[in-house]
Amino acid sequence: MKLYSSVHPLRWEPGALHLLDQRRLPAEQVWLRCATAGDVARAIADMVVRGAPVIGVSAAFGLALEARALDAGREPAAWLTGLERAGAVLEAARPTAVNLAWAVRKMLDRAREVAARPDRVAAMEAAAQALYDEDAALCEAMGRAGAELLADGSGVLTHCNAGALATCGIGTATGLLRAARAEGKRLKVYATETRPYLQGARLTAWELLQDGFDVTLLCDSAAAGLLASGRVQAVVVGADRIAANGDVANKVGTYALALAAARHGVPLYVAAPTSTLDPHTPSGAAIPIEERAAEEVTHCGGRRVAAEGVRVWNPAFDVTPAELVAAIVTEHGVHRPPYSKTLPL
Amino acid sequence: MKLYSSVHPLRWEPGALHLLDQRRLPAEQVWLRCATAGDVARAIADMVVRGAPVIGVSAAFGLALEARALDAGREPAAWLTGLERAGAVLEAARPTAVNLAWAVRKMLDRAREVAARPDRVAAMEAAAQALYDEDAALCEAMGRAGAELLADGSGVLTHCNAGALATCGIGTATGLLRAARAEGKRLKVYATETRPYLQGARLTAWELLQDGFDVTLLCDSAAAGLLASGRVQAVVVGADRIAANGDVANKVGTYALALAAARHGVPLYVAAPTSTLDPHTPSGAAIPIEERAAEEVTHCGGRRVAAEGVRVWNPAFDVTPAELVAAIVTEHGVHRPPYSKTLPL
Repeated sequence: MKLYSSVHPLRWEPGALHLLDQRRLPAEQVWLRCATAGDVARAIADMVVRGAPVIGVSAAFGLALEARALDAGREPAAWLTGLERAGAVLEAARPTAVNLAWAVRKMLDRAREVAARPDRVAAMEAAAQALYDEDAALCEAMGRAGAELLADGSGVLTHCNAGALATCGIGTATGLLRAARAEGKRLKVYATETRPYLQGARLTAWELLQDGFDVTLLCDSAAAGLLASGRVQAVVVGADRIAANGDVANKVGTYALALAAARHGVPLYVAAPTSTLDPHTPSGAAIPIEERAAEEVTHCGGRRVAAEGVRVWNPAFDVTPAELVAAIVTEHGVHRPPYSKTLPL
Repeated sequence: MKLYSSVHPLRWEPGALHLLDQRRLPAEQVWLRCATAGDVARAIADMVVRGAPVIGVSAAFGLALEARALDAGREPAAWLTGLERAGAVLEAARPTAVNLAWAVRKMLDRAREVAARPDRVAAMEAAAQALYDEDAALCEAMGRAGAELLADGSGVLTHCNAGALATCGIGTATGLLRAARAEGKRLKVYATETRPYLQGARLTAWELLQDGFDVTLLCDSAAAGLLASGRVQAVVVGADRIAANGDVANKVGTYALALAAARHGVPLYVAAPTSTLDPHTPSGAAIPIEERAAEEVTHCGGRRVAAEGVRVWNPAFDVTPAELVAAIVTEHGVHRPPYSKTLPL
């Protein structure tokens, strides 16, 4: 059966990358036009797009834009230097997602191969498009592989947006939901709102409702009580980076869900393409955790809610130790512990 | 050393109860004047005041107002019937806090004693004032007893507002902080924002900053990572109801904090007066959990943030099993497990 999402986070045309401004969802659907790698880097840093896979592909298109902008009259070496500079800017836009660095590296490798060719711009655009197509295919493969983890009639809790909006296809965690549903399974989805950025309330609930899912929203802090109530049979999340031992860096709050799930015997599944695996990072302790602006916490819906003068700690991610992860689903299938042996590193 | 808070949630004068409107903090300090028990019940239901102890005392003053309103020309039986009706309305304003029912019962017991006396109104006002004074004394006793649990230089995580704003004195959980500080201990306080109502961001951070505490605000979902980081040596929370076995109903999210604290060997302390103990409730499973309006989750700072059409699950409380609670501090001292033996039930 065909797997699909009615929602897509980006549209490409040679010379312009159009990004659905996720900061303005679900109230309105506004597309932002990026004409340079700098535009794309800013969009990534400002969270116009978010979600590890789509950040990587957006950066790839950013380098395709830069390849075109730098093309006229430039020697291969100068063209390459310009692209490397743009790659560094893109890579610095968000520090935790490993896909970003991975996509930039792939694009720069390709640039070195084609720098002397007359069709180097088209080659770079094709390379970015290939990453897009590949990501869509990865989502579909993850969905088909992981659907077996979700039983008919089960309650499934997800966190943040590991959805179509975070990928070029049907999503990572939501890919499993879509694939299970395509197999005829009825699911009751619970989405945490995911403070401070409310990706669950704004994005996951929205994209799943577009496709007719039964979705219930709850505060992050209510999830432990939900797990205690027996209404959830599986927790499914994405990942921003997975260490060689299977420790998972994902949206802040994942670790708390993992602890509550473990307490109540509910399996936590992580769905992420192999580009999220970081064989150079031995464990979660070595993963850099981005800290974001205080205003994300002190303000809500554009209004200051917190007391003036308060300090803020606003990490974007946390680390869930591998022992709390029942399975990791990649495009190659369902991997069980011990991850250092079973992950396709 | 004198223990104090510069912040107080209510002011009483015969014929009127003035409540600091906590919904509008910290942006502005607005006082709401209640002239009837119905006014007070509405203020409690609408969360003008919140926090188990102050809800109970507010209800007591509500009955004092009603005693005066019903006084003129009424026979003792009719006066009592009117007060009982008002008591039922007040008790129904919030279902989980046991202090509310406790304060109403105390006031109605007193009403039965004084119904035939000419000074019955003054007697009811004195009874409510006595509950106020008693609550202030309880906070001080809890603070002095529990301060020993907090070491000099420690990081202390608190959730919701178990503060001066929730009591008639220095607070329950924050009473411990204030007392430890009065002993010369330096504390670094971490306050969770406490979605959906943001009592941590709006109230706890504000009241502690008023008194010069070092306060850092974080999202509820970041607390597990904070505990993993080793920066917290104690978690201190209040309680809305404590079952006979020591299970604790408190603001939703407490259970998740308890699980993370246990994982990292950080003790969780609960500070609550004995009026919070419910000997008739054998365990947490029997505690009714209030579910509040969907709008608290779908809206943020007055604006809709969640997708239209999404279902919402919005429990106000959750239950932390006694085995995750290192100690319960009441006005009688520090109680350790097994709580069924050590709590002054």
